[in-house]
Amino acid sequence: MTSLNEIKKPIAPYIDEFEKKFKTSMQSSVALLDIVTRYILKTKGKQIRPMFVFLSAEICGKVNESTYRAASLIELLHTATLVHDDVVDDSNERRGFFSVNALWKNKIAVLVGDYLLSRGLLLAIKNEDFHLLKIVSNAVKEMSEGELLQIEKARHLDIKESIYYEIIRKKTASLIASCCACGAASIDGIDEETIQKMHQFGEYVGIAFQIKDDLFDYEKSNATGKPNGIDIKEQKMTLPLIHMLNNSSYFEKRKIKNTVKRHNNNPDKVNLLIDEVNQSGGIDYARQKMIEYREKALSILREFPESEARTSMEQLVIFTTERNK
Amino acid sequence: MTSLNEIKKPIAPYIDEFEKKFKTSMQSSVALLDIVTRYILKTKGKQIRPMFVFLSAEICGKVNESTYRAASLIELLHTATLVHDDVVDDSNERRGFFSVNALWKNKIAVLVGDYLLSRGLLLAIKNEDFHLLKIVSNAVKEMSEGELLQIEKARHLDIKESIYYEIIRKKTASLIASCCACGAASIDGIDEETIQKMHQFGEYVGIAFQIKDDLFDYEKSNATGKPNGIDIKEQKMTLPLIHMLNNSSYFEKRKIKNTVKRHNNNPDKVNLLIDEVNQSGGIDYARQKMIEYREKALSILREFPESEARTSMEQLVIFTTERNK
Repeated sequence: MTSLNEIKKPIAPYIDEFEKKFKTSMQSSVALLDIVTRYILKTKGKQIRPMFVFLSAEICGKVNESTYRAASLIELLHTATLVHDDVVDDSNERRGFFSVNALWKNKIAVLVGDYLLSRGLLLAIKNEDFHLLKIVSNAVKEMSEGELLQIEKARHLDIKESIYYEIIRKKTASLIASCCACGAASIDGIDEETIQKMHQFGEYVGIAFQIKDDLFDYEKSNATGKPNGIDIKEQKMTLPLIHMLNNSSYFEKRKIKNTVKRHNNNPDKVNLLIDEVNQSGGIDYARQKMIEYREKALSILREFPESEARTSMEQLVIFTTERNK
Repeated sequence: MTSLNEIKKPIAPYIDEFEKKFKTSMQSSVALLDIVTRYILKTKGKQIRPMFVFLSAEICGKVNESTYRAASLIELLHTATLVHDDVVDDSNERRGFFSVNALWKNKIAVLVGDYLLSRGLLLAIKNEDFHLLKIVSNAVKEMSEGELLQIEKARHLDIKESIYYEIIRKKTASLIASCCACGAASIDGIDEETIQKMHQFGEYVGIAFQIKDDLFDYEKSNATGKPNGIDIKEQKMTLPLIHMLNNSSYFEKRKIKNTVKRHNNNPDKVNLLIDEVNQSGGIDYARQKMIEYREKALSILREFPESEARTSMEQLVIFTTERNK
């Protein structure tokens, strides 16, 4: 697997420039706000989203000022969401640092999130990037719908495989799809069909990414050396378990649901269920589906002419679905 | 004082139609989301903001489809903010009903807030109401800046009167200003100067409104029959106290700050301070400032030709600054 630094190479100068511009886009007239946003910048992640934006732009044409704004818009929005998420989940840690709410309390965290969101919107509006705005607002809508659908469906444990794909398409894939669509849309004179194609590409990548993420809960080969079983504990139905349920008899189904409903806090029972999911072929099935979605993504990519950016994008797709944590 | 129903008369059919359209704009494909938004609609407030939008439009021209979208955009945004506020303040009640977070937990409340916000954005983007979007995004930015500035300044109790106005202009007045500006901007072919004028009008109204709101904490004549002193308890410096501080000697200042800093949970000391604020003329001063801002607003209004809508707007301004709770 190619390293992220290697993958980044053809767009490295853009990413460096982007980081500078992004820093500026966060500046404000309120001192407290600057202290918090400077802290957020210090704890930034792997920059996967900006990479999708810049590589998509380079695949469809040439990175320009509008591409930078697209990346800033998405990153401002995504950062706002993360800050809010930590408030909701009452979590004190983010990427190995204290979360904003842990250091400055909930009220400040929510306000900073709102502020970042409004800065993203204003940046796009000021420059009349309405196409980008539409793509991104739609992603915000789908992300909240997806999360809510997941909460709604978790109450019944009878979840169809198609609903699972709908949930992960909305809650996870829509953001990656909008990165790729915005990258394409930032190119002057690009046609709608190409934007849609890049959107579809990102959606497939996002679905494969989330199946992989859900697999960490069942696979023994992850970073900690054992499956963590958090999804079962939280009664979150993901593909390996859904597949086993759909291939079980009435009585087996009842037994599985009983474990998830009533014994989800018992590590022994959870581990036993994970073993059963493995033996039933649920994990293999999910892996195979993940590869199918990845292949769909890669085959869209192959419709574009060969280039350094396309090769990097292929490597990025492999990276996001082969990662170990 | 004219009643709200009386004030509403010239725009009553618009408000009725708006309520229907607003209901539709909230509909979604996720059942859980529909249950929550239906509940929110049931607990709606006095519809003051839509009134500002429709009256502003009628003062500048004629209500049209874009005016409805302006009102929906602002109301969706405002509702999203309220739902988020209750999460942050951990409050279980809103307008005499249970809050969304009290009934459905924080996670759902935050997601529903995000969803409403995205629906507002998409509504405006779909119809290319970019002018409205710009006005509203700016208000979102100013609202979060204002709240954060207040938190920052509360730490030192040395707050200048000018900073107080900056805080309330941003955190409160910017939303009312954007109602009036959007109402004006919804009129086809309107000039930028008129939009700015209506924005300034709304800003003055909002400042007067917030001074009035802050006075409730010091006035004995409010609905409960006694001042509640919550702002002092929360170490929030508002105009009556700021005015007294600025007119105190060095030693008086130290004594007052000591009460706010160290005895803010002692009702006897807080009540004594409220009496002192009254005797010092701080309450009268704030009332006088409130009236000055209201007059500034009304004088802008008088630049527009006389009409039923203008009269209603004048009454609405009086209503929002003379209300008893």
